[in-house]
Amino acid sequence: MSSSFIDLRSDTVTKPTVEMYQAMSDAKVGDDVYGDDPTVLELQEMTATLLGKEAALFVPSGTMGNLICVLNHCSEFGSEMILGDECHIHLYEQGGCATLGRIHSRTVRTQSDGTLLLDDIEQQIRTAKDNDHFPQTKLVCLENTHNRMGGKVLTVEYIQSVGILCQQYGLKLHMDGARLMNAAVQLDIQPARLVECCDSISFCLSKGLAAPVGSLVVGTHDFIRRAKRLRKVLGGGMRQVGVLAAAGIISLTKMPKLLELDHQHAKLLAQGLSTIHGCEINPESDVQTNIVVFQLNPNKINIDAPTFATILKNEHQILVTVQGKFRCRFVVHYMISEENIEYVSQKVKQVLENNKK
Amino acid sequence: MSSSFIDLRSDTVTKPTVEMYQAMSDAKVGDDVYGDDPTVLELQEMTATLLGKEAALFVPSGTMGNLICVLNHCSEFGSEMILGDECHIHLYEQGGCATLGRIHSRTVRTQSDGTLLLDDIEQQIRTAKDNDHFPQTKLVCLENTHNRMGGKVLTVEYIQSVGILCQQYGLKLHMDGARLMNAAVQLDIQPARLVECCDSISFCLSKGLAAPVGSLVVGTHDFIRRAKRLRKVLGGGMRQVGVLAAAGIISLTKMPKLLELDHQHAKLLAQGLSTIHGCEINPESDVQTNIVVFQLNPNKINIDAPTFATILKNEHQILVTVQGKFRCRFVVHYMISEENIEYVSQKVKQVLENNKK
Amino acid sequence: MSSSFIDLRSDTVTKPTVEMYQAMSDAKVGDDVYGDDPTVLELQEMTATLLGKEAALFVPSGTMGNLICVLNHCSEFGSEMILGDECHIHLYEQGGCATLGRIHSRTVRTQSDGTLLLDDIEQQIRTAKDNDHFPQTKLVCLENTHNRMGGKVLTVEYIQSVGILCQQYGLKLHMDGARLMNAAVQLDIQPARLVECCDSISFCLSKGLAAPVGSLVVGTHDFIRRAKRLRKVLGGGMRQVGVLAAAGIISLTKMPKLLELDHQHAKLLAQGLSTIHGCEINPESDVQTNIVVFQLNPNKINIDAPTFATILKNEHQILVTVQGKFRCRFVVHYMISEENIEYVSQKVKQVLENNKK
Amino acid sequence: MSSSFIDLRSDTVTKPTVEMYQAMSDAKVGDDVYGDDPTVLELQEMTATLLGKEAALFVPSGTMGNLICVLNHCSEFGSEMILGDECHIHLYEQGGCATLGRIHSRTVRTQSDGTLLLDDIEQQIRTAKDNDHFPQTKLVCLENTHNRMGGKVLTVEYIQSVGILCQQYGLKLHMDGARLMNAAVQLDIQPARLVECCDSISFCLSKGLAAPVGSLVVGTHDFIRRAKRLRKVLGGGMRQVGVLAAAGIISLTKMPKLLELDHQHAKLLAQGLSTIHGCEINPESDVQTNIVVFQLNPNKINIDAPTFATILKNEHQILVTVQGKFRCRFVVHYMISEENIEYVSQKVKQVLENNKK
Repeated sequence: MSSSFIDLRSDTVTKPTVEMYQAMSDAKVGDDVYGDDPTVLELQEMTATLLGKEAALFVPSGTMGNLICVLNHCSEFGSEMILGDECHIHLYEQGGCATLGRIHSRTVRTQSDGTLLLDDIEQQIRTAKDNDHFPQTKLVCLENTHNRMGGKVLTVEYIQSVGILCQQYGLKLHMDGARLMNAAVQLDIQPARLVECCDSISFCLSKGLAAPVGSLVVGTHDFIRRAKRLRKVLGGGMRQVGVLAAAGIISLTKMPKLLELDHQHAKLLAQGLSTIHGCEINPESDVQTNIVVFQLNPNKINIDAPTFATILKNEHQILVTVQGKFRCRFVVHYMISEENIEYVSQKVKQVLENNKK
Repeated sequence: MSSSFIDLRSDTVTKPTVEMYQAMSDAKVGDDVYGDDPTVLELQEMTATLLGKEAALFVPSGTMGNLICVLNHCSEFGSEMILGDECHIHLYEQGGCATLGRIHSRTVRTQSDGTLLLDDIEQQIRTAKDNDHFPQTKLVCLENTHNRMGGKVLTVEYIQSVGILCQQYGLKLHMDGARLMNAAVQLDIQPARLVECCDSISFCLSKGLAAPVGSLVVGTHDFIRRAKRLRKVLGGGMRQVGVLAAAGIISLTKMPKLLELDHQHAKLLAQGLSTIHGCEINPESDVQTNIVVFQLNPNKINIDAPTFATILKNEHQILVTVQGKFRCRFVVHYMISEENIEYVSQKVKQVLENNKK
Repeated sequence: MSSSFIDLRSDTVTKPTVEMYQAMSDAKVGDDVYGDDPTVLELQEMTATLLGKEAALFVPSGTMGNLICVLNHCSEFGSEMILGDECHIHLYEQGGCATLGRIHSRTVRTQSDGTLLLDDIEQQIRTAKDNDHFPQTKLVCLENTHNRMGGKVLTVEYIQSVGILCQQYGLKLHMDGARLMNAAVQLDIQPARLVECCDSISFCLSKGLAAPVGSLVVGTHDFIRRAKRLRKVLGGGMRQVGVLAAAGIISLTKMPKLLELDHQHAKLLAQGLSTIHGCEINPESDVQTNIVVFQLNPNKINIDAPTFATILKNEHQILVTVQGKFRCRFVVHYMISEENIEYVSQKVKQVLENNKK
Repeated sequence: MSSSFIDLRSDTVTKPTVEMYQAMSDAKVGDDVYGDDPTVLELQEMTATLLGKEAALFVPSGTMGNLICVLNHCSEFGSEMILGDECHIHLYEQGGCATLGRIHSRTVRTQSDGTLLLDDIEQQIRTAKDNDHFPQTKLVCLENTHNRMGGKVLTVEYIQSVGILCQQYGLKLHMDGARLMNAAVQLDIQPARLVECCDSISFCLSKGLAAPVGSLVVGTHDFIRRAKRLRKVLGGGMRQVGVLAAAGIISLTKMPKLLELDHQHAKLLAQGLSTIHGCEINPESDVQTNIVVFQLNPNKINIDAPTFATILKNEHQILVTVQGKFRCRFVVHYMISEENIEYVSQKVKQVLENNKK
């Protein structure tokens, strides 16, 4: 998409900052398959420290990060994992946990705040060794912030309660932390606090943190050694990847402080949308971070989400993601200014008013 | 278990009839891996005819029958199937569809009558070729009668409505018909009517129909040719299996007419249980075939299901299946007489009265 | 095939003996999925004792037996096994170890006596934990007698030498003992001696031992517990399977003593064939048990194996297996008499003389 | 490794050129998961054109490239592929074809020139639909230049002969072309000539062509559409990957002409080594491109490969790969000068003379 568009499809569209380009130019590199890339090693150590864990591993994407983690925990034949029915791993990763990782998935209903009820999780756990009808539950997965639930933030207390349940049953706890930094910023705490009970984390640099490419898998030394093997077999072992890691270091050091502004802009956008006839959103309860999910009300306006998206794109250079027949999503990021927000609110209003019932 | 027990754990416990033993003794056999067993060929043809399909294949169990069918429909890498969250394939087959068949499962809520809502199914279908985030939906699975839902019967009309939805989206429809004959008997129709819209059926001889071993996979000639390959790789290709097929032929010819009596006995048992303090069951709505699921009410009695089962077994020679903390299941079959039913009702009453609050 | 044929395709074609039919009629049975079948329990205990191991498990076929064993040893993601390039598991089980069990296979050349060279095995072992380019070797597989190599017998000394190598590297050793009893009879030793160093054995009742259906997986209690889980997920858990086990008990108690006669008949057949112009076989070195592999010599006769097989079948009611363009196999079993052997030699001679160059 | 080392472990250690760093700085980027990165699109089109195919796809590594291709051709359950026993896919990719892709591998002996004999391939093909003992052969894989065989070049004529065989049996032909450009340069032909008969190619930028990261999968439009799905599920979908593609474009436009010099340097190195006592290599027959495999002769010198490598590294800042007890490999690349070659020859001579018998 040409830069003349206001691209709110996702925060994955963020382009590297000037500082990142500079860092990539200056990056010291080596062959990371041999463990020789100093910039990658630095980024991995920074991330492990940031999340309070022993070690980290650079991977090409959040999808690979999640796949490596779940396969790592469920590497024994006959494993099952418990996860939310609306989480990214279950919905948006092409079913790789089953099709590549041969893990059986057991889902529980995702609540509107992104949590899974403890009772629901507990009811699905199957760890009895002597019942041959059942696979063996090995893992529970959470997602923070929760993408599909509109960027909702899981709290330290909630995560701890799931962690205690997992320990009680000998299960591992994985955190899909693609946007963990957004949660930490919103809660105003260190990200390490959010994953104290987690055995593994997949953490993305390429979303709101604006790095061009890359995620990190984080856990114990032993976990990361096995993760490195899994990265290799999946084809994620790369060579002079310090050029990417250099940008990632900027993501960790310079970008987190910008996320707060993204959250303010998202709230602003939600407030704007909430005043528009036919646009359903509650700025207080629905928007906690940088994701703004809203519904078009077919009782009030004569337009569905795909048509709405096409008009925004073709007539107003605004890009939005369609998530259902009447459901849309904007994601705010560092390339979106307050002026952009105002322009978008105004154009949405214009489009919906033109399609009033 | 010694024959002095009244075994109501499942209809799988049925022993071969005298006539079956005789048929096994007289069976003409051959090497079925070479296709040389005349008795197996006869049973397969009888079953295909019974279900109105082109061909059938003998397999050692219902679990293998289901696995062969879903893997047959979802043999392409990256396939997904839609099934009920309470169905046997999802809950009780050790997750083989994922762990062996690498199929991604998408579940929808099972209704209390064993159906899945059409809207729920439709919402889960993902057949767009161009969205790389999604696996490809290939299959919908139903179960009739529905074991976990207490032997509930799916009607011809309901199955047809799912069949039409599947055709609309180019999906296959599989029927787990482990107890399909119970459904046909209860509805008083030919079993073929119940699977007109189905692309495959797994049909069991070893449950209410009392054969010692065996199920059949049923479908088109081409489907069965591929099923035979899958049976071989799973290790289900057997040799002089006519000794089992001979009993299976008795199952098809002599046993169906006895199922009606099982259903009457189940209703009788449910009526008995419904009059007992602390035993929750509605004989009208809850019991349609030979399965009787009931709840112990912890507000009225001081006993949980595992303890209840232990007392029944140790003190009264009655075997029951525990399905939850307060949930139990009786399954009636041809070896259970009306006297047995009365005895069981009486003993349950005695145990629960002894544990009144 | 009608009984008017002399069926030498395989010893799998053996029909149950009169005694087996009687045993099946008298069998005490129960639901083996619940562990309630006394006849199955008896057969399992007998087989474990026979092979000097802790426990055994009845399975529907040798293919499932092998699959359960290799998957049991290689259940961790990223496992590799070493096996002969001519063994049954690699050639004739549809690749199930990879397609279902996701095990990587590394083959070594099978010697003409059915052995694998120790040096060849050792060179393929990859157990270093730190080389991410390699899977992890977990298992070595042998086959005794060796089907494809013409029923060759592995000796106790050879198997021990492989066992020592495996222990040295922490590998497991699996024995495909589909025809282990033929090896024991030929060596005139207890079968347990042949598997002292083996961690698992797959042992067939349905070949020379004439049972209609069934094999056993044999190993430690812990191994068998996990084997039972694998049998269930593969769909090999059967119900009143005592009817089959009863025949299997006859296989173990009555049939072994008949195998020696089969071996004599095979030798006799080989001697006859060796005198025929255009038929290449060395009765001394090529035939050790009940399998007779021979080559048609295209320099001496004008007929290939498929044509030869067709003439034998259509004109002389003799069934032979074609194993290559000029390669054929006869397998002798209890249903083949000395008269049959003489008739077959005579007819082969007649067919080949009619096709002399 | 610090730049003070002469790193001959592999051509994967090549660092980006100055021009590549500049190109990365200037790269126009977009979100490639949405198909919005213009630099990636340009690189993909350039590569497709270079190899005479319809389309190409950027992937993070050669291992992922190969995995995507074989899984693409063998996506149907029960598939088998035929490949050389010394090829990279079989030996050095952690068995991913089986462990992730559930493909059964059938190997044939790799000849010393990197070819597989046509007869050997043909003998392994199993395409009969009606033999349930066999998986279905779908694919043959070649490798050019052949890494393990010392960088040997497959000729157009040889590849065509394999292509004709594949067409005859309806098989696909995949080329692991990690160093295809080295083969083209050595043969002085267009790379497209080398893959005319191939259905897919995996082509690496990160080896002799010096790009920091990346390979391309090349084939028909339809093949690449499916490859893109597979890339996504494996976690190889990346975002602003134009920063890497920009370097890749320099690889294609500027680096091929430097490969000839690498080949001359490799020959020079081999000539030097061949004159050293205890170092076995034939510069004429053994070295065709940039890979120099040599043996230490234990009859002439008292040193094995691991010790030799340690001394070279610690005392002379030279890095070599150990490939066996007495087998070593040097790989020459653009960062190695003629002076380096002379220095290495001289130091190898010194080390081996110090360890003469």
